[in-house]
Amino acid sequence: MSDSAIDHLISAFSRLPGLGPRSARRLVLTLIRQRTRLLQPLYEKIQLVLEQATLCEICGNIDTQSPCQICEDIRRDPTVICIVEDVADLWALERSAGFRGKYHVLGGTLSAIDGRGPDQLGIPRLQQRLAEADTPVQEIIIATNQTVEGQTTAHYLAELFESDRLTVTRLAQGIPMGGELDYLDEGTLGAALMSRR
Amino acid sequence: MSDSAIDHLISAFSRLPGLGPRSARRLVLTLIRQRTRLLQPLYEKIQLVLEQATLCEICGNIDTQSPCQICEDIRRDPTVICIVEDVADLWALERSAGFRGKYHVLGGTLSAIDGRGPDQLGIPRLQQRLAEADTPVQEIIIATNQTVEGQTTAHYLAELFESDRLTVTRLAQGIPMGGELDYLDEGTLGAALMSRR
Repeated sequence: MSDSAIDHLISAFSRLPGLGPRSARRLVLTLIRQRTRLLQPLYEKIQLVLEQATLCEICGNIDTQSPCQICEDIRRDPTVICIVEDVADLWALERSAGFRGKYHVLGGTLSAIDGRGPDQLGIPRLQQRLAEADTPVQEIIIATNQTVEGQTTAHYLAELFESDRLTVTRLAQGIPMGGELDYLDEGTLGAALMSRR
Repeated sequence: MSDSAIDHLISAFSRLPGLGPRSARRLVLTLIRQRTRLLQPLYEKIQLVLEQATLCEICGNIDTQSPCQICEDIRRDPTVICIVEDVADLWALERSAGFRGKYHVLGGTLSAIDGRGPDQLGIPRLQQRLAEADTPVQEIIIATNQTVEGQTTAHYLAELFESDRLTVTRLAQGIPMGGELDYLDEGTLGAALMSRR
């Protein structure tokens, strides 16, 4: 194909995560065919996000306002802060609807190889947040991923924050909902056995 | 998450083919994080496509002009027309760079169940195009898909157009490039044997 607006749109889409050239072509054809039903609404919604999306200055969430709706929500418990690696993790916990405290998004994990230390993850900012809190924070839930980097970061955070006036907890390890023992790895089974109750 | 512009964008993306809620969320997070590098360019390219994309009035291709660049290209042979089901098929043949004639996009296949007859596929328009051509068309290549519907449509078109002054051909059937005999279905192997040369 030639150097037209359509090709430029295809190549813009094919650079996005999870989309390759073939799916980008298919996507753009569908969008053009359903211009009023799909392409126009997508355009308008991107415009709004461009205008409104921002990082929350307190927790690092992505929202249309800063402080974000969660940080502003007075019905949420300010004495519990859940630390996550990424905004996607925060959203995942919100979907579970099991947590009614506040969050703190690290934006990654500690990594000597990638040169990410505590400063790059905004950990001083979190310490400052704890020091300046109107209501003292009583519990920190470390909800980093169950990867080597996530667990290294979790250890670091636990050592940093554990004190007389602050409880540090972690998400439980065990068998996922609907999980079948036969299909689970040994690590998960071992952890589930250790934490039996 | 709440009812924000970000959620609306996620739900717009999750309605597109090949994207589900999870990949749409991931996509939107990436887009917002890389606003200037990804989101802003995507927005501008969608705007251009909204302004420019159109169906070619002659062949049914999607382009930024009508007649499309292929129909307008005087270096291409107007005596050969390749009939394809879909714009995506036209683009695929263009990528192969093996064809220098013109195209005709049916926009589907004949289907009694879905109520698509020759009129719905613009076949009268194609007949008119052949009748009114400045340079008489000498060959029609039927490049419908190797599906039951595609082949039914191909039979219909072959019977319709075959005449003394018009050659009707089909794409060769055989073993695809890099294909291993052991992994190919019997139909393909049988066709490749029949058409051996």
